Amino acid sequence: MRYRRIPDEAVQRLPLYLRGLLFSSQDPKENISSQELADFVGVNSWQIRKDFSYFGDFGTPGVGYNVEKLIKQIKKILKLDIGHKVALIGIGNLGAALLAYPGFKVYGFDISAIFDNDPQKINRKIKDIVVENVADLSLLKRRKIDLCIIAVPREAAQKIADTLVKAGIRGILNFSPCRINVPKKVKVITIDIAMDLAILPYYIP
Amino acid sequence: MRYRRIPDEAVQRLPLYLRGLLFSSQDPKENISSQELADFVGVNSWQIRKDFSYFGDFGTPGVGYNVEKLIKQIKKILKLDIGHKVALIGIGNLGAALLAYPGFKVYGFDISAIFDNDPQKINRKIKDIVVENVADLSLLKRRKIDLCIIAVPREAAQKIADTLVKAGIRGILNFSPCRINVPKKVKVITIDIAMDLAILPYYIP
Repeated sequence: MRYRRIPDEAVQRLPLYLRGLLFSSQDPKENISSQELADFVGVNSWQIRKDFSYFGDFGTPGVGYNVEKLIKQIKKILKLDIGHKVALIGIGNLGAALLAYPGFKVYGFDISAIFDNDPQKINRKIKDIVVENVADLSLLKRRKIDLCIIAVPREAAQKIADTLVKAGIRGILNFSPCRINVPKKVKVITIDIAMDLAILPYYIP
Repeated sequence: MRYRRIPDEAVQRLPLYLRGLLFSSQDPKENISSQELADFVGVNSWQIRKDFSYFGDFGTPGVGYNVEKLIKQIKKILKLDIGHKVALIGIGNLGAALLAYPGFKVYGFDISAIFDNDPQKINRKIKDIVVENVADLSLLKRRKIDLCIIAVPREAAQKIADTLVKAGIRGILNFSPCRINVPKKVKVITIDIAMDLAILPYYIP
């Protein structure tokens, strides 16, 4: 099935809706109104209706959206209907936190490889995964891993990214607080944890 | 100085611009064009010009924006021109990663108190800060701390939030992968780390 081109802002809200639907589906519910979902995720109900209309789901007036169907649709659009193997580069405090983070499974992500440059960590098992040497990152090409999480110090981030690009990785989630440059065919999302904190004071009278 | 009401979307982009300006100001530069800033932060230049126009800075045609002045203006709007003391609740892997994260200082945040419920951690020093007992969170009221970061397991998050609200905290950055409920006067931003990863597959052909 093909969809109309969906604006980036709407795409970025889809995981939020998906999480809301997944949690709401924990108590068995067949349908959900845009208002119920709006209350749950904190987005206006008109925005939700508009976002869903991009892929042709307009719900049923007076009934709402079918939860299960909507979950399937969003997963398909976001290509989360197939699981994704993820490699984590850097297993310091942040890397360990990410590895322990329960939220990745919700979206079908499976951290299945860990790399570090610390001889004390290489070949040791962390959460049942053997830590590999970053020097072997180039071998990722042969494995079914298409996403990588960079959680290394700022100074090392660009070099790691270059290696990942050469290894054929197409999607990078970068937690190093710096910009990394990659060719256009590779999508990088940089997370600056502090930036979310930075908007808080604005809202405090 | 008072500003026109700025839309939330624009407010959310301001820390991004601020970071871009701060990094660009590392090599001495008096002015920056909206296009240069756009290339740096990955937002359209027209969007940047529109966002800045909300607080009356239209730059100088052919010259651009004065970097130092713009940094000051954005900091003032975001109330980052005064430093903020931050308490961190939960010093597990994620808490330790946040404490070590260099990015908070950029925005004037100073993690100056740490709380945990683990007797093994309480009263020990981590990065020169003595870990306090979560049971004493209610005493935060008397200290000059106005922002808190919650990095506790999901099950504990709501209870911690309730305590923080009672202690008079007005802004919470929540890293627990769950929704927490607070009165309207309190602003909560929930960070779901996995959600950012969830949009990556969409962009990979």
